[in-house]
This record gives sequence, structure tokens and C-alpha cells, in this order.
Amino acid sequence: MSFFPEPLERLTECFAKLPGIGRKTAQRLAFHVLRQPGEEAEAFANAILEARSSIRCCHICQNLTDAELCSVCRSPRRDPSVICVVADPKDVMAIERSREFNGHYHVLHGVISPMNHVGPDDLRIKELIGRVGKGGVSEVIMATNPDTEGEATAMYISRLLKPMGVKVTRLAYGIPVGSNLEYADDATLFRALEGRREM
Amino acid sequence: MSFFPEPLERLTECFAKLPGIGRKTAQRLAFHVLRQPGEEAEAFANAILEARSSIRCCHICQNLTDAELCSVCRSPRRDPSVICVVADPKDVMAIERSREFNGHYHVLHGVISPMNHVGPDDLRIKELIGRVGKGGVSEVIMATNPDTEGEATAMYISRLLKPMGVKVTRLAYGIPVGSNLEYADDATLFRALEGRREM
Repeated sequence: MSFFPEPLERLTECFAKLPGIGRKTAQRLAFHVLRQPGEEAEAFANAILEARSSIRCCHICQNLTDAELCSVCRSPRRDPSVICVVADPKDVMAIERSREFNGHYHVLHGVISPMNHVGPDDLRIKELIGRVGKGGVSEVIMATNPDTEGEATAMYISRLLKPMGVKVTRLAYGIPVGSNLEYADDATLFRALEGRREM
Repeated sequence: MSFFPEPLERLTECFAKLPGIGRKTAQRLAFHVLRQPGEEAEAFANAILEARSSIRCCHICQNLTDAELCSVCRSPRRDPSVICVVADPKDVMAIERSREFNGHYHVLHGVISPMNHVGPDDLRIKELIGRVGKGGVSEVIMATNPDTEGEATAMYISRLLKPMGVKVTRLAYGIPVGSNLEYADDATLFRALEGRREM
């Protein structure tokens, strides 16, 4: 049973459908929208519609874009011979923040996950094979997450790519910078020791 | 610097303006909206616009409603001689959930808070005085939050109401049901002892 007017309930429902937002938070957000200046709420509604209508996947790297090609694929200053493969558009942003990578990307839009009924065909793997098949690619960096599914996906793709004569690499495992050894988990410490480098 | 297309950034900004939602969460929500079925995203945008345009305050109790009067003030089964005064529409819902109260409400839309430049004139206090002044009210229950500002607001209003010959009461303080004495704070325990009842 609800004690709030229908339109407010509907807005609460919409917020509650978002990930990580429960009923209570959804209600708080709906109330906030009611209290926002009118033009701000309108801008919010428009932003939803516009994002939905204008955003698509880059023809080359499958990253999100509002143009034919994304800003990385369009840029003449990026090196197209190195492709960094990530699971998610958010990962592109994370790597861009490091300012260490100057190549191109390839966004898989997910990882292989039999539990969630996601197979290789549900990802943008054939597009990646197509890019590498065209030639001009010297290295593919697998930058999926260091968890079981990310690992399995990286393994699966590297097995497809290696016969094509391209170098396939994986991000290094180890202790996160600024972290505390005391709190590092066993698996990470094991990988950090295994991957130790001469100083 | 942003690596995402403009419309996605704008939607992220809108989410980030909501209370308790940081950049990271805002981004996650924006991505979710992109992945939602088209009609769901559209319903979301419409829900925002509709809630904004159709929701107003009940003429009598100032609670939110999409009609002239709210469902409580319209109901012939509620007792208009008892008014429960709350700071926020959400508090109405909390009290309704207890199924213990059958009177009417009055929503102040805030509490007196000099720190935040909210004075008595910024709240719906004169509307409450008006209701009580019309007669027919036997009791006003002050149900503002048990914090400093809620307490001060309750005190302020009770001083205005008492000369009008109406009984003014305050919610009981004490140990929350189902809680653990060990974790109760001193002030609550003090109030619980002070308000002890014979069994």
C-alpha cells in the first residue's frame, strides 16, 4: 500500500530499477527531483532521452560514441597498431586516466560468463578478430578484469589471436600502488612475487 | 578531460546532482540507462516530467498530492481532531506504516535550523496555526525527529499552540524495539529510564 501520489510512486519505481538503488534511496531521489528547480528536472529528463537516442557503438572499437567513430579512433595521434581489449566502456576511461596508453581500444561489452549465459558470440569478439585480420596490428593487450571471468575471456581471445601472428599481452598483476602489504590477499601477493622484477 | 561522448556526460552530470550519488555511481547509472530497453528509459524521462508537473501540496495538510486534497484529508474514515505534525512527507509514510495513527497530518516541509537559514516563516507553521484556529482540533502530536532541530521546532510550535487551548503531545523516547541495550546510546537510555512505565 502506498501513501504517496501516483506520479511520485512511478518516479520512485523508475529510480528503484537502477542498479544499487533500493526503495528508500529511490524515494529520496524522487523527492529530490521534486525539489529541484524546474529547468534542472527538465534537463534531466532530456538528458535521458538524448543519451538514449544519440549514443551508439563506434564502428571500429565498439566503444560508446555519439558520432560515427569514437574520439580515439578518429584521433590521428593515436597508434592503431596496438589494441587494448577491455570488457566495458568504463574500463577505457580508467586506462585513459593513467595517460600511459596511446594505442586504440576494443570494447567487448562484457565477458564470457556461462553462469549468466554470456558466450563468446554475445561479445564483440568477431569484430576484434576482423580488425586484427585486416593487418597492421602488432600487439593486443588483454585488459579484462583480473577475476575468473575476465581471465577466461582473455585466455579465450588470446587463443584465437595467437595463430594470427599477433603478440598478445596481459596487464601485470601485483600489489596496487599505495596499498598496504598487510592487507594484500594471498593470490595478489603470490602474483606479485611471481612477477618480481630486478631493481 | 572526458573520454565519453557529450550526451553520456550530460546524463552522468544529472545523476551526480542527486543527493548521495558521486561521479562513479552517476556513471554507472548513466550506463544502465543506456542499456535499458528504450521504453523503460522513456518512461523514466516521462516520470520525471510528470512528477514535476502534477505534484503539489495538499491545501489542508501540506503533504504531497496530485489532487486538490491528499488521500488522508479526503478520507471520511480519518479523525480530523488529531493532527500529527511531521517535518517531511516521508515521515507521513513512516507513521502510516505503523498502522497506529488514524488522525490527520500536517507537514512542515523542514525544521527550524538557523545554521541552514531556515526560520519559522520558511515552514508551513502558519498553515498549522490556521487549522488549529478554526477549531475542532483536540490534540496535536509533535512528531518531528528526536534531534536538536526537530526538538527545537517541536518546542517552538508547542509554545504557539498551547495558548490556543489545544493538547500538544510529543512522541515517546526510548529503546527501539528489537534493538540491543548494549548498543543504545547514553541519551536514549537516559530517556528510556526517565520514561519507564509500570508493567
